[in-house]
Amino acid sequence: MPSERRPRLTPPIADVRRAVRGVLVSRGLDTPRAATRPPLLLVALSGGPDSLALAAAAAFEAPKGGWRAGAIVVDHGLQPGSSEQADAAASVARDLGLDPVLVERVDAGAAPGGAGPEGAARAARYAALDAAARATGAEVVLLGHTLDDQAETVLLGLARGSGSASLGGMAARSGRYARPLLGIRRATTRQACLDAGLEPWDDPHNLDPAYARVRVRERVLPVLEAELGPGVAEALARTAEQLREDEQAFADQIEEFIEEICEPAEAGIAISAAALAANPAALRQRIIRHVVDSEFGVSLSRSQTLEVARLVTDWHGQGPIDLPRGIRATRAGAHVVLSTTGSTEVLPHDH
Amino acid sequence: MPSERRPRLTPPIADVRRAVRGVLVSRGLDTPRAATRPPLLLVALSGGPDSLALAAAAAFEAPKGGWRAGAIVVDHGLQPGSSEQADAAASVARDLGLDPVLVERVDAGAAPGGAGPEGAARAARYAALDAAARATGAEVVLLGHTLDDQAETVLLGLARGSGSASLGGMAARSGRYARPLLGIRRATTRQACLDAGLEPWDDPHNLDPAYARVRVRERVLPVLEAELGPGVAEALARTAEQLREDEQAFADQIEEFIEEICEPAEAGIAISAAALAANPAALRQRIIRHVVDSEFGVSLSRSQTLEVARLVTDWHGQGPIDLPRGIRATRAGAHVVLSTTGSTEVLPHDH
Repeated sequence: MPSERRPRLTPPIADVRRAVRGVLVSRGLDTPRAATRPPLLLVALSGGPDSLALAAAAAFEAPKGGWRAGAIVVDHGLQPGSSEQADAAASVARDLGLDPVLVERVDAGAAPGGAGPEGAARAARYAALDAAARATGAEVVLLGHTLDDQAETVLLGLARGSGSASLGGMAARSGRYARPLLGIRRATTRQACLDAGLEPWDDPHNLDPAYARVRVRERVLPVLEAELGPGVAEALARTAEQLREDEQAFADQIEEFIEEICEPAEAGIAISAAALAANPAALRQRIIRHVVDSEFGVSLSRSQTLEVARLVTDWHGQGPIDLPRGIRATRAGAHVVLSTTGSTEVLPHDH
Repeated sequence: MPSERRPRLTPPIADVRRAVRGVLVSRGLDTPRAATRPPLLLVALSGGPDSLALAAAAAFEAPKGGWRAGAIVVDHGLQPGSSEQADAAASVARDLGLDPVLVERVDAGAAPGGAGPEGAARAARYAALDAAARATGAEVVLLGHTLDDQAETVLLGLARGSGSASLGGMAARSGRYARPLLGIRRATTRQACLDAGLEPWDDPHNLDPAYARVRVRERVLPVLEAELGPGVAEALARTAEQLREDEQAFADQIEEFIEEICEPAEAGIAISAAALAANPAALRQRIIRHVVDSEFGVSLSRSQTLEVARLVTDWHGQGPIDLPRGIRATRAGAHVVLSTTGSTEVLPHDH
């Protein structure tokens, strides 16, 4: 039976609720629906302060917006007692009035390898969330990532690569997933829990410096804030938002003309050299990366991309460029040909 | 009389020379000119390892590329002995064969205020460099900023703002200024000096934690490298390069159509609401910022820009938006009007 929690409406609680309401409103679903059964949203609940505050806000806002709200707790089984902890989180979710509440036990070790322990746990978690959404018919899964998580993601992106694709962080919306709290500080979610009389669980993994994200949180961001002044986390989160917009604008532009400037070639694809030359560097390089990625599933580095671009921007008869997985880039007259055979034969256009 | 330094060609020396050659080549001036007097480049020399290695490389490469190379030493007079240090740097420059070699004494205190001590010193330095370039007829001034300086600039940009405009760092070319060493690590320039038997001077200000740049260099970057792995400085520099390209591409695009979508208005300017709506967020927001900046000299924050954008993206009859310096943004039918009077009268188009 749902308990009769009636928390005071403190600013942190109001902030989290407003953020959740923003997701419901922006989906055009802020008015109660008629006869049919209300759509379902699921909160991905770990029991930590972020997802617990999110669950409480969703339980409050969903009915007002014409939604049903449930929860899914993923138990990674990575430490003793994780099963009890998952059950405890599920029990709190039921107390909040969420329904249905699912607990999924996953084995991160069984996830596709190669991504390290963080990547494996992440893949297993999203597989479980997808499965739960399908099983319950949920339209939306709410994730508790905060502004702090976003700032950490931007800094982690720096270690992996560069530019707007690496630094764009997490999307506020992506398929069935929504992250309402990307504009909310982690400290606010913890205070919202305290104000509501909810006791968040602190995952010991969140303090384990074996994880790059933990090192960013505990060591990197505090140094940035101390040396560059407060507001760095907010600046990183704003940066992510802007760079995602930039990346989207370029993607839209490329989408508009990519078919016109490409032709099939033997074992590959040919791009119009004139079109590459006519575009500014930012688009030219994205076109090259886009074509190689979509044709061969290979992600080129900046220096590889620039070398291919020089077949147009600095053409002086240089030979083919060897790229990963046997791909070659060759200037052949009016085209830059990307193929796995090195052939530069452009095939008759069929559209 | 130039001394007979004949340093071994070590990899650091070769790297710095190649970088300088890249600037000369890319200006299409890599072949010696005919009868007329060769053009002049000036190296901005502090005597520190970066500019000293640059001066040595310029002295070697310039004649081969058909240039004369000189140097300009700026003495900020910020510490006792700065005058002697400047004279010593000038003497080394002459020994390297640079000619002419100028020493300019500046008073940073006399520079326009409001920018803090770092900004004042910077403004005074560029004023002195500009004056020296004019006085000598130099076509190019080479600055010794390295990859490390670029990485620091990106991190400092984070403290000031966000997005590609703040994180784009320094340009490799800007007017008469060129920065050939943006792809070279600071340690490489120091080693190049040692290899050449040149003794760089270490400015005590480079260790004074009162300067944000010094804190970034001494405290922030080392923590990033330690926690995220080596290569962070390179990733930051690549990021700057890409974000500058992105910013340039958007600027070019806006340049192409800005006149078509704007009309004069009473005490301001009117932007077509349809054009704002039709563009992706990245361009819409840049159009708004561009118009307000060029019309009123005011730089809008992201949240102010987004509020103006909502006059189009989320129009529900909201009232005028108050912006800094008495500017108001008002939706008036088919236009978003920006004016200092609040009037929304669109004037007859005169082009």
